[in-house]
Amino acid sequence: MTATRKRIELTEVVMRDGLQIEPAIVPTDTKVALIDQLSEQGYARIEVSSFVSASAVPALADAAEVFARIRRRPGTVYSALVMTPRGAARALAAQADELSLVVSASEAHNRANAGRDIDTSFDGFAEIALLARDTPATLCGAIAMSFGCPLEGDIPFERVLGLVGRYANLGVRSVSLADTTGMGYPTQIAALCEAALRRFPDVRIGLHLHDTRGLGLANVHAALGVGIERFDASLGGLGGCPFAPGASGNICTEDLVHMLELMGYDTGVDLDTLIALRPALENAVGHALHGHVGRAGPCHRLARA
Amino acid sequence: MTATRKRIELTEVVMRDGLQIEPAIVPTDTKVALIDQLSEQGYARIEVSSFVSASAVPALADAAEVFARIRRRPGTVYSALVMTPRGAARALAAQADELSLVVSASEAHNRANAGRDIDTSFDGFAEIALLARDTPATLCGAIAMSFGCPLEGDIPFERVLGLVGRYANLGVRSVSLADTTGMGYPTQIAALCEAALRRFPDVRIGLHLHDTRGLGLANVHAALGVGIERFDASLGGLGGCPFAPGASGNICTEDLVHMLELMGYDTGVDLDTLIALRPALENAVGHALHGHVGRAGPCHRLARA
Repeated sequence: MTATRKRIELTEVVMRDGLQIEPAIVPTDTKVALIDQLSEQGYARIEVSSFVSASAVPALADAAEVFARIRRRPGTVYSALVMTPRGAARALAAQADELSLVVSASEAHNRANAGRDIDTSFDGFAEIALLARDTPATLCGAIAMSFGCPLEGDIPFERVLGLVGRYANLGVRSVSLADTTGMGYPTQIAALCEAALRRFPDVRIGLHLHDTRGLGLANVHAALGVGIERFDASLGGLGGCPFAPGASGNICTEDLVHMLELMGYDTGVDLDTLIALRPALENAVGHALHGHVGRAGPCHRLARA
Repeated sequence: MTATRKRIELTEVVMRDGLQIEPAIVPTDTKVALIDQLSEQGYARIEVSSFVSASAVPALADAAEVFARIRRRPGTVYSALVMTPRGAARALAAQADELSLVVSASEAHNRANAGRDIDTSFDGFAEIALLARDTPATLCGAIAMSFGCPLEGDIPFERVLGLVGRYANLGVRSVSLADTTGMGYPTQIAALCEAALRRFPDVRIGLHLHDTRGLGLANVHAALGVGIERFDASLGGLGGCPFAPGASGNICTEDLVHMLELMGYDTGVDLDTLIALRPALENAVGHALHGHVGRAGPCHRLARA
């Protein structure tokens, strides 16, 4: 029966997007232990860390050591966020399987987040593509603020589609549209995803959603309806962008897996063992996590007991 | 432009479903003031209180006085939950516009919630229909545990559809399917709603959803897709059934209105003034409310400032 279920590719972003705004710096040992446990969950991808300025994101300054010490599970892609050729070189040296690039659809946010304009970001991505060309590493691209920006307001679809095209021109075959501050809503999410899928049939389009206004899973549902099969999520709903006003938690992995499995999709992730990881993560960050299923428990239909 | 938007009928249930499980008894004056402010929001319906045993639900023992003292806004239906002919007689004496009946699709839950079996509930409903026949009051019916029951497990669709039919046979033209403990999921919600709409074209089918597992708005989205246009919601996401293990908050009105208005629906409710009611409700119940938009603020697209 499992073989007939449609596979959804999940990327666990808690170790990067989740930890980057936590006030507590999680010790490297704890990160490695958590990632090794996440590896056993069966994720398609785990975003391990980011190779950016240690002064800008001190919580992830130990990226190279984390990559060196984790046990890699065959079948899971271990990715690293990079924003510059220098960061990419460090990520390649650390043998990241995938370099995750990020540009913002909002010039104002790109300047706040990356310290440069969008064109300059893509100049750097072109260098990164050259650096990665003769390595086993693949590239994926994210487009922050794809569904609206608190600094700039509405973002035209054409601008987002143009950025997908610029990634595609660099050979990036996997692009994630990010609702960085949770401004997207179902009809908009469906329309932009549908346009992107139609215009770029060779690019795998994914979604990175935040639950700032409670629309995370409704937006996933809308995206599933137009054929999106890749989603980022964060254990315990941690996360947010330190350079975007009002950004709050990513969609919660446990709640997403619960919904998808009930709907008959195969996420590859086992919900019970995933929920069992919450206390270790709570200890690491020193506060309670978000999410509904972690508190209420899964529906009896998914309960193994 | 407003004229072209599809209208969604919202029922505000915070004063009944919300307050019934609060440990604090909200004073009658406060209830009347809150309902009068809710009346100005433009809801299609407001569930004012319930005429049930005061010992079972002491928080709502003042139902008659509340009905006597509220100012009624033309265009809003003021409903009362009743479970027995005796309660119905009291609600009619209080001039409730609508008597809201409730039966559970689960025999075990119907016994816990109503103290009788399903057939006995319907015997009472037949008496209530006779009582109401020569009054201006209308009847609506709810079916608790339509999407699963923590006591009985899965609930067959046919059982729920059979109960819709029993209501219809009594002349009830408005039936709400309730996910009392948040066990429903989008594909299931869509399938059961679609079957009910198809089999009962003369009955207005609505949904009463709880957000226990974070699926509330995703379930609304799924239901919109098959043509459901009536939803219950609770300001601040308060609510739950005192006789159902694990029941937690109703879907939050602010978050629902925010999603629907962004999607181009007309709820009749003004989001900003609705959000402005939260502090008064928080004071009344003595604790923080649920909901995302009340904390994060609406998207700039909906912000009037």
